[in-house]
Amino acid sequence: MLRQLYVINGPNLNLLGSRETNIYGNQNLNEIEELSKIEAKKHKFNIKFLQSNKEGLIVDWIQEASKEAKGIIINAAGYTHTSIAIMDALLACNIPVIELHISNIYKREDFRKHSYISKASTGIICGFGTNGYLLAINAMSNILNDG
Amino acid sequence: MLRQLYVINGPNLNLLGSRETNIYGNQNLNEIEELSKIEAKKHKFNIKFLQSNKEGLIVDWIQEASKEAKGIIINAAGYTHTSIAIMDALLACNIPVIELHISNIYKREDFRKHSYISKASTGIICGFGTNGYLLAINAMSNILNDG
Amino acid sequence: MLRQLYVINGPNLNLLGSRETNIYGNQNLNEIEELSKIEAKKHKFNIKFLQSNKEGLIVDWIQEASKEAKGIIINAAGYTHTSIAIMDALLACNIPVIELHISNIYKREDFRKHSYISKASTGIICGFGTNGYLLAINAMSNILNDG
Amino acid sequence: MLRQLYVINGPNLNLLGSRETNIYGNQNLNEIEELSKIEAKKHKFNIKFLQSNKEGLIVDWIQEASKEAKGIIINAAGYTHTSIAIMDALLACNIPVIELHISNIYKREDFRKHSYISKASTGIICGFGTNGYLLAINAMSNILNDG
Amino acid sequence: MLRQLYVINGPNLNLLGSRETNIYGNQNLNEIEELSKIEAKKHKFNIKFLQSNKEGLIVDWIQEASKEAKGIIINAAGYTHTSIAIMDALLACNIPVIELHISNIYKREDFRKHSYISKASTGIICGFGTNGYLLAINAMSNILNDG
Amino acid sequence: MLRQLYVINGPNLNLLGSRETNIYGNQNLNEIEELSKIEAKKHKFNIKFLQSNKEGLIVDWIQEASKEAKGIIINAAGYTHTSIAIMDALLACNIPVIELHISNIYKREDFRKHSYISKASTGIICGFGTNGYLLAINAMSNILNDG
Amino acid sequence: MLRQLYVINGPNLNLLGSRETNIYGNQNLNEIEELSKIEAKKHKFNIKFLQSNKEGLIVDWIQEASKEAKGIIINAAGYTHTSIAIMDALLACNIPVIELHISNIYKREDFRKHSYISKASTGIICGFGTNGYLLAINAMSNILNDG
Amino acid sequence: MLRQLYVINGPNLNLLGSRETNIYGNQNLNEIEELSKIEAKKHKFNIKFLQSNKEGLIVDWIQEASKEAKGIIINAAGYTHTSIAIMDALLACNIPVIELHISNIYKREDFRKHSYISKASTGIICGFGTNGYLLAINAMSNILNDG
Amino acid sequence: MLRQLYVINGPNLNLLGSRETNIYGNQNLNEIEELSKIEAKKHKFNIKFLQSNKEGLIVDWIQEASKEAKGIIINAAGYTHTSIAIMDALLACNIPVIELHISNIYKREDFRKHSYISKASTGIICGFGTNGYLLAINAMSNILNDG
Amino acid sequence: MLRQLYVINGPNLNLLGSRETNIYGNQNLNEIEELSKIEAKKHKFNIKFLQSNKEGLIVDWIQEASKEAKGIIINAAGYTHTSIAIMDALLACNIPVIELHISNIYKREDFRKHSYISKASTGIICGFGTNGYLLAINAMSNILNDG
Amino acid sequence: MLRQLYVINGPNLNLLGSRETNIYGNQNLNEIEELSKIEAKKHKFNIKFLQSNKEGLIVDWIQEASKEAKGIIINAAGYTHTSIAIMDALLACNIPVIELHISNIYKREDFRKHSYISKASTGIICGFGTNGYLLAINAMSNILNDG
Amino acid sequence: MLRQLYVINGPNLNLLGSRETNIYGNQNLNEIEELSKIEAKKHKFNIKFLQSNKEGLIVDWIQEASKEAKGIIINAAGYTHTSIAIMDALLACNIPVIELHISNIYKREDFRKHSYISKASTGIICGFGTNGYLLAINAMSNILNDG
Repeated sequence: MLRQLYVINGPNLNLLGSRETNIYGNQNLNEIEELSKIEAKKHKFNIKFLQSNKEGLIVDWIQEASKEAKGIIINAAGYTHTSIAIMDALLACNIPVIELHISNIYKREDFRKHSYISKASTGIICGFGTNGYLLAINAMSNILNDG
Repeated sequence: MLRQLYVINGPNLNLLGSRETNIYGNQNLNEIEELSKIEAKKHKFNIKFLQSNKEGLIVDWIQEASKEAKGIIINAAGYTHTSIAIMDALLACNIPVIELHISNIYKREDFRKHSYISKASTGIICGFGTNGYLLAINAMSNILNDG
Repeated sequence: MLRQLYVINGPNLNLLGSRETNIYGNQNLNEIEELSKIEAKKHKFNIKFLQSNKEGLIVDWIQEASKEAKGIIINAAGYTHTSIAIMDALLACNIPVIELHISNIYKREDFRKHSYISKASTGIICGFGTNGYLLAINAMSNILNDG
Repeated sequence: MLRQLYVINGPNLNLLGSRETNIYGNQNLNEIEELSKIEAKKHKFNIKFLQSNKEGLIVDWIQEASKEAKGIIINAAGYTHTSIAIMDALLACNIPVIELHISNIYKREDFRKHSYISKASTGIICGFGTNGYLLAINAMSNILNDG
Repeated sequence: MLRQLYVINGPNLNLLGSRETNIYGNQNLNEIEELSKIEAKKHKFNIKFLQSNKEGLIVDWIQEASKEAKGIIINAAGYTHTSIAIMDALLACNIPVIELHISNIYKREDFRKHSYISKASTGIICGFGTNGYLLAINAMSNILNDG
Repeated sequence: MLRQLYVINGPNLNLLGSRETNIYGNQNLNEIEELSKIEAKKHKFNIKFLQSNKEGLIVDWIQEASKEAKGIIINAAGYTHTSIAIMDALLACNIPVIELHISNIYKREDFRKHSYISKASTGIICGFGTNGYLLAINAMSNILNDG
Repeated sequence: MLRQLYVINGPNLNLLGSRETNIYGNQNLNEIEELSKIEAKKHKFNIKFLQSNKEGLIVDWIQEASKEAKGIIINAAGYTHTSIAIMDALLACNIPVIELHISNIYKREDFRKHSYISKASTGIICGFGTNGYLLAINAMSNILNDG
Repeated sequence: MLRQLYVINGPNLNLLGSRETNIYGNQNLNEIEELSKIEAKKHKFNIKFLQSNKEGLIVDWIQEASKEAKGIIINAAGYTHTSIAIMDALLACNIPVIELHISNIYKREDFRKHSYISKASTGIICGFGTNGYLLAINAMSNILNDG
Repeated sequence: MLRQLYVINGPNLNLLGSRETNIYGNQNLNEIEELSKIEAKKHKFNIKFLQSNKEGLIVDWIQEASKEAKGIIINAAGYTHTSIAIMDALLACNIPVIELHISNIYKREDFRKHSYISKASTGIICGFGTNGYLLAINAMSNILNDG
Repeated sequence: MLRQLYVINGPNLNLLGSRETNIYGNQNLNEIEELSKIEAKKHKFNIKFLQSNKEGLIVDWIQEASKEAKGIIINAAGYTHTSIAIMDALLACNIPVIELHISNIYKREDFRKHSYISKASTGIICGFGTNGYLLAINAMSNILNDG
Repeated sequence: MLRQLYVINGPNLNLLGSRETNIYGNQNLNEIEELSKIEAKKHKFNIKFLQSNKEGLIVDWIQEASKEAKGIIINAAGYTHTSIAIMDALLACNIPVIELHISNIYKREDFRKHSYISKASTGIICGFGTNGYLLAINAMSNILNDG
Repeated sequence: MLRQLYVINGPNLNLLGSRETNIYGNQNLNEIEELSKIEAKKHKFNIKFLQSNKEGLIVDWIQEASKEAKGIIINAAGYTHTSIAIMDALLACNIPVIELHISNIYKREDFRKHSYISKASTGIICGFGTNGYLLAINAMSNILNDG
């Protein structure tokens, strides 16, 4: 029996692999989804892999996940630094949340160094490129097994 | 003849009553809508009671209200602290606006202490739980009768 | 049997109705007292209506109220933004406190946007002119009935 | 053969001409679109003229423009000051971007003085009323001819 | 016929002449009152010369002056930097106010460089020792003659 | 022959022992006065033990102490963080001053971490509960014997 | 009949075209003057084209322009960020002012992001290289025709 | 035998009386010079009355005054808030300096509330319109007679 | 053939498992070392597992690692937020660095939210308890295989 | 049976009595140790009196004390303001901690006004010179007797 | 063949040796020029030694030096902290720049601790009195020999 | 007879010449020591040349130098910006101190722009590469000859 996991991707992550590849690497989001699903299977997860540029839709998905899933992995991209609405949705759901960033946001511009998501996350994985998705799945499995 | 009133609720307020009840109380949004409609009747208001997680849709509703209604009661939740777009929509409408918060936001985290909505509101009601909706309707009636 | 309620007014509120009427309206403090007493009666409150320009005396009254009354409504005026002593007195009393402002202090100078009183209040009513006093009495009745 | 140009307008700009005309002038967005198209023709541009109150939709349009157009003129209105998501979309597209404001935002409230859009723009035109749209088209033509 | 003038002195100014004479000079407050009265006579003023350590009492006196006098000269001493209540009282009175300091407060500790009183004053005289009182009387006469 | 010592207590300290006993302990101010007088005797001090909620009265007492006493122990409570007037009175007196706090103010809210009193004190005793009064008397004796 | 226009250039702009050409482009100030005069003619302007490294001389020229010209285009370069004197001169003249920057100053060091000139300008043109001069002339013509 | 006094006026003060008369009044600088010379005679001063828009020239004059005069009255206008060079020149001269402002700079924009000149002045006269010049002469006479 | 990996632990981490177990969990550092070595073997790593309370010794170890090892995993504990010396050592070594925290430092006190280590790290793993060590070994293997 | 007490002294305190005696007094650390041991005996304490310039060694000693002693008195000197490592060690030990400073650090440079040690201390004694050591021993005895 | 070197001195440095000798020493600028020329000869430099109180003239000289000289030594005095124009001139010249201060500016007032000049300098020599000029010549020779 | 001089080098300076040579140059610390000793001989200095990564050891060496040497040259590297302990040791020694940096720290990251060492130094030499050591020795000789 597989456990449901939501992997939610924020604005502009649909562009992965085609632009700013020096920062974000060469893999596109479909490829990441494929690799994530392979890793997920090892940990008995079924993944719902989502992307949107819309803050409100991401809030909707988090609310849905809190009913449908065992955990959330979220790469909120640009909304990481500005969205109290997303943070509040994460605070209101009572399943584990892992915050994920492809690049090391703490080496970038100052406004990228503050994350509202961190205040609502169990753990944070940051700077490991697209491999971060696999680490997050791995980590979520460990959290759920422990809890 | 009833006067039209928009009551606009922001992100995550659809979760009222089921989560974080220590902060937000036990009533859900449907119950609040019912109680608000009863109070509204006493003051000859017809209420359009709305909720969305989407900032842009809230802007749309405010623009609509400025044509269709005599007043707006708004609990912008997480967008209270971040949305200049909502503030600008409220500044552009020329009907009274009442800002509402269920919890006392000034006792909470620092980032909840700044409200863009306040700059565009006639008055503010904050910290009275779901009773705040009834107080706001009461207050709006008084503003419209005075004006 | 009436419930005792203290309504405490801070510095310069004795000037209401005669000066800066564009900000504070035309009613003087006596008229507000009269209207408050009428509203109070509806909610079975007996009101002790006080005004002082002296921070220390306001602290004394709060201490007295904590023994003699069921609730405090306080418009601390200029002391709102500077008095830790008043805040501490409110924190030390264990009856509900409602903070009241006639004008919307969040639309005014920056130094009026921080309130020590808010940290010690159940709820806040701000910007409704002298009608705020009636709303506060209404709200206090609701708090005491619920509690 | 006409060159494609996206002109993207942010929240509340659909209200132009009807409200706060002291700040934003008397022309409505349709009139500006008409004038822009006349100016565009002189510079061999075909204009796609868009407006939305929704941050996420604006991100979508920018991503679309980066594939379909030679340049973007953006008046992000209230999102100018808060949207890292829009900035990131602009940073990811590799066509010229012109930031436009109808009013001189540097003469207004402090929170309007910081623009995330500027960090992703080639140039900025600000304070020339609706004539700014024509100047921006003119400037874009010059950039594309030079580049 | 003499014009009434209030000269209000704040906390610790009763110690003038006996302590910290390197900062405040050797004249005591009685001597300053005498010299002020002599200067006042030249300008057809009758002076009410007051000192208190109590913020609230100073507010009372300002309110009284606004009914009884043509102008106020105020050396608010330590309350200069902290009292919004005194500032509000001065803002509410509609007679000219001159702010006075014996020492040059802008050469001293940082917390003495901000004055709430300045926001409510016509003019400021600072750093001229006890001669400042005579200059202020002279200046007030000029303001009243012009007005 | 006993040496005179003023022990001055600020706002709300008259509530000691009856409220917020988790922060301030169970002893009331009378009990502290009794214990202080016993300790004082050991060090040949006669204590004048005072409490007021009024900033101005505390300034008066400091001025009086500077004439009548050999030293001042002051627990300025809420005025610690806001009163330049009290600080100036202490700076003007030329007897030793010991600042006292029952709780460790540096573990509490940020606004309690700045003390104007410290700038005018010889030494500070903080966080030792009501035993701090006895330590302060002990310390004052040592200062006066050394001086 | 030609309308007089002052184009005032601040410190180091005489070096244009020979240094830091990656930021400021290859055209020197003489070439810009020539192109500006051609553009000016189209809009019936006579241009007085000036450059100085001296803040005070720029103030002089603005005062002169306020008597002799219909508008000012100013690229204040390094004085943009530091000169209240130039801002005050612009505020005192009652002709339209256009602020101009060759580079996008909002993408550069933090101290270049604040402009005193903006507070005294009708509009701002920034980041379009030397073409900005032509856009500014174009914009000025539009302002004067509208006004 | 007359005592020499320099009255130094900073940038844009040559515009007095013709512009922004709501802030600066109707008298022009020549009229102020005339009135100052009349007042000066009463106090046995000979006045050198100067104005420049150039920071460096003002530094030169201060250095000259320190050799030629008994005192300096300076209205540094826009340089008040930015010129460490002028402050250093004043600090280096060892004659009394009076800082003068026509308007009450503490009621204006934030950047006008900090004065480098104050750190090098004996006293400050601010907000009394052009009468401030006469008060300053009066005050300087008193300083020199005392010294 | 095993690859060498340094796992460096900062001050107080030798106390793991015995104190503040609500924050840091129940495993002690020896147990973590054991588990890490098992995980390391899977990835063909040989681990040198170190702990010190001394900033300088940690700098020494980093310098040593840069010669002896293929990668560094560092949990700098309290030095995370204060040590530029450790950051400089990490910046000077040219092997991958993974920053590790057992607790989610972004949910704790403000001074724990800034990390100098992040500026010198490839990636960050934070908040996963002692499982973070295993994730970091996993991640390091991935980095080295990719590089 | 004596109770063990650690008295830990930070960097440069080994210089006491020989340098900067105007700030730190004339007694050297050996003399303070002697006096402390005499006072300790009165309170049935055995003192381990330590000094080091090394942050890491101080962390070691605190960890040792948490096993070997009933209480810690710490004068962390320069590390007071910078060492999160020492604060964390103190937070991890569960015996009472008294923070001690010879001089009144709140009267000195701004960077000396913040103490990390205070966040981990029961109480603070500051500004009483070397007598502070005796007061701290006295205070510790009282804490242990009460606890 | 001598190498040309500009030594540029800013405002008030013409007063060296006659005023504030406790800070700036007893040598006047002529004496420094003489000593500099002797040192210069040893290093095969010809020195152009300049001083002005005028910011704009210093900009002119730097532009001239960038054509005529091999290096610039600049003591910008009060303009160090305020002049972006001078910094820009230095950034635009492509010869080595040495920043010089006679006093240790980092021990003085806060506003003297920020230097725009440093951002455009190769190296900085500060606090060595007038000997700093000789060290700077020595250092410049070394830079030019190495380059 | 040679004069003793301590040259103290902070963390990571043992890596000079092998890493980040674009910032720090190609010479290693041994080579610098050799060159320093040659320069020292010219000025009759005997050099003790030290390096450590340990803050506490550097404090020890400074204390030792204050007894054994005539002067200290210190390149505190990463501890420059964080060590109050080192600053205090330097303040306590009464021999001249020269602060040295190989790179121009004022052109680098913001956290490198504040130096605690500067507050305890006679003079500062910064940005001249390894030649800075020779300049510092030269400067120290001059200070000691003058003193």
